[in-house]
Amino acid sequence: MIYLDHAASAPLRASARDAWIAAATEVGNASSVHGSGQAARRLLEDAREAVAARLDCEPIEVVFTGGGTESINLALKGLWWAREAGRDAVVLPDGEHHATLDTVTWLATQGAAVRPVGLDGVGRIDPEEFAAALAGVDASAAEPSAADLSAADLSAAALATALVVNNEVGTVQDAAALAAAAADAAVPLHLDAVGAVGHVPVSFAGWRGTAAGSSGLVALSLSGHKFGAPVGTGALVVSRHASLAPLLHGGGQQRGLRSGTPDVAGAVALAAALAEATDELGAETTRLRALGDRLITGIRAAIPAAELLGDPVGRVPGNVHVLFPGAAGESLLFLLDQAGISVSIGSACQAGVAEPSHVVLALGRDERAARSVLRLTLGRSSTTEDVDAVLAVLPEAYARASGSRTADRS
Amino acid sequence: MIYLDHAASAPLRASARDAWIAAATEVGNASSVHGSGQAARRLLEDAREAVAARLDCEPIEVVFTGGGTESINLALKGLWWAREAGRDAVVLPDGEHHATLDTVTWLATQGAAVRPVGLDGVGRIDPEEFAAALAGVDASAAEPSAADLSAADLSAAALATALVVNNEVGTVQDAAALAAAAADAAVPLHLDAVGAVGHVPVSFAGWRGTAAGSSGLVALSLSGHKFGAPVGTGALVVSRHASLAPLLHGGGQQRGLRSGTPDVAGAVALAAALAEATDELGAETTRLRALGDRLITGIRAAIPAAELLGDPVGRVPGNVHVLFPGAAGESLLFLLDQAGISVSIGSACQAGVAEPSHVVLALGRDERAARSVLRLTLGRSSTTEDVDAVLAVLPEAYARASGSRTADRS
Repeated sequence: MIYLDHAASAPLRASARDAWIAAATEVGNASSVHGSGQAARRLLEDAREAVAARLDCEPIEVVFTGGGTESINLALKGLWWAREAGRDAVVLPDGEHHATLDTVTWLATQGAAVRPVGLDGVGRIDPEEFAAALAGVDASAAEPSAADLSAADLSAAALATALVVNNEVGTVQDAAALAAAAADAAVPLHLDAVGAVGHVPVSFAGWRGTAAGSSGLVALSLSGHKFGAPVGTGALVVSRHASLAPLLHGGGQQRGLRSGTPDVAGAVALAAALAEATDELGAETTRLRALGDRLITGIRAAIPAAELLGDPVGRVPGNVHVLFPGAAGESLLFLLDQAGISVSIGSACQAGVAEPSHVVLALGRDERAARSVLRLTLGRSSTTEDVDAVLAVLPEAYARASGSRTADRS
Repeated sequence: MIYLDHAASAPLRASARDAWIAAATEVGNASSVHGSGQAARRLLEDAREAVAARLDCEPIEVVFTGGGTESINLALKGLWWAREAGRDAVVLPDGEHHATLDTVTWLATQGAAVRPVGLDGVGRIDPEEFAAALAGVDASAAEPSAADLSAADLSAAALATALVVNNEVGTVQDAAALAAAAADAAVPLHLDAVGAVGHVPVSFAGWRGTAAGSSGLVALSLSGHKFGAPVGTGALVVSRHASLAPLLHGGGQQRGLRSGTPDVAGAVALAAALAEATDELGAETTRLRALGDRLITGIRAAIPAAELLGDPVGRVPGNVHVLFPGAAGESLLFLLDQAGISVSIGSACQAGVAEPSHVVLALGRDERAARSVLRLTLGRSSTTEDVDAVLAVLPEAYARASGSRTADRS
């Protein structure tokens, strides 16, 4: 099998597996007072320190969760529930992951006013547009703000969120610029770094800058299985100055922000995978860029109509997101799967529902285009042979999926 | 080390560990369309079927979560958010786990009116008192209901919850009777079966009875690490007729009730542990009751003032919860820990904060008593030698902790 769907789930690293087994075999609840509990807690706190060192934050700021979706829900709902009175807007860029999109849609049923921010043609957020949305200026509105709303009401949103690396097209945002805009507007910002951590350099303190407080960058989410830790592991970095309500109430573990018996083995495995991923980040970036370029060049040579979507320069290594005009992405996926090659049509996280990609639509493409894309994501296990195997079958698959083979037959 | 804190966290079963390793090593996101995704989904759905068979529910009713705390939060908040208009009461027995207590306390900040139900001296809920609370009759109130509330307002609560096995004193409730009361009152009931699953017979369909609908027993929570599955695994059984809002929004996995990439390895490990635990339930019940009796008899013989709390008959096998008059539970715990014996003062889940046990208070005992208890929980790894080792050191520890040794010295 050739696995070109690393962005959906990366293979478990041996280091993470071994760390999990060693820790899971220890007995003890990290909340217990006795010696076995304390041994578990030491493992947990060591993992927290190791993760903090790789994300450039303080250990106390690392809150372990059950995955990226929980981290994002905790950040957005937590900030919403803890918001200052009178702030009811949520700044939401287009093309966010469904964990964010569906959470904000739910918050809208709880009284949130959604303030969208558009993407450009390659998926970038313009920091100035982001700042305008934070300040309550709707750049797309023809009319000025209603006179019955005071300037103060419009000056501050309850919270803002943004995806650092788009999970479909791979575009990397200028996280520091978005954080600076949030700090200037005194709005708390959550960054969804699920596709970023382990794949591009991430610095919580660096992105936050000197504006550490209850606004600006206050939360950053990550998911373990995107960089080789087990599925079901994740974390939310939460600034010690942030005001955040918990999503899970209970025993008060992890600063009261995430109750529940801490998953020590999961945390230790996540720390091991993150250490390895960041250690090899430089070399892997170079290697995956070269592999990605080989794949893109090969596709373009064989299928001149194919078009790389997303930012050709500021994209996460390993992401190759291609529009194949006239071919249904689902058909291409099926034909490649028949050939033993696993790829994706956009996000894997939509529980098997094939809809036009809302990300591709946000790039200004039409529905037909949004149904004609394939996401091929290379990763640690990928080789030149994998790339060449895809290139060997893709032209025929495209011919069949786009109907040109049928045309040949007629 | 002698581990007598199985209720805090049970040792990982080898079967669960091996199942986890095999599944985690497979690549693929169970939400992906391609072959590897489908293979992951098959593992997940097989695990769901296996769990359903052991809990006597339908596979579609099993929602995998990241643990017991998440399951309880999902049940309570989910039922609250999906409640019928005008229902704002939550029926809450005394002595519930903090995951329930703190969630309901938070719901009270969101408009919930808490209706308590007392426990008797051994920790039992009287089904008639439960029914009265469900119907809006406050059995403990001296005054009749305020005249400005109509009978209709008082007749139905938004939801009710109850702990099947008390995690501190081990008392087992009559789950079927509580479910019948909820069905009669047309109120949705959540049962916290975290301490029950794998330790006493659990039947979702049997407890629910013929009253399958949007009220009566609609949700049942469990936690994997309480019966030898990994920490960070759990499930909520949700009736297909229940009306429940999700806690985690996102890709819409698991009937839309629990978004997020499903933790296939965790689910498979949970299923393996549950199968083993229920297979050996009869034999282990007999064995642990005998071990528990030996421990209780030995403690009483050595320390006549010691008193077994909780229901002496209707208690979970392996739970020995003892009041040691005049001795601080913390001191006893410390002295036993020094001797290499891990025990607990009530729940381990309070993140290291030593407070008087709210469960012991709910039995009608005073604060001094609530600080003078030890919970010893036997489990699969426990032996006669473990019991005898505790009995060998406990009298001296009690003498020191209760000050009688100091008295001897003076």
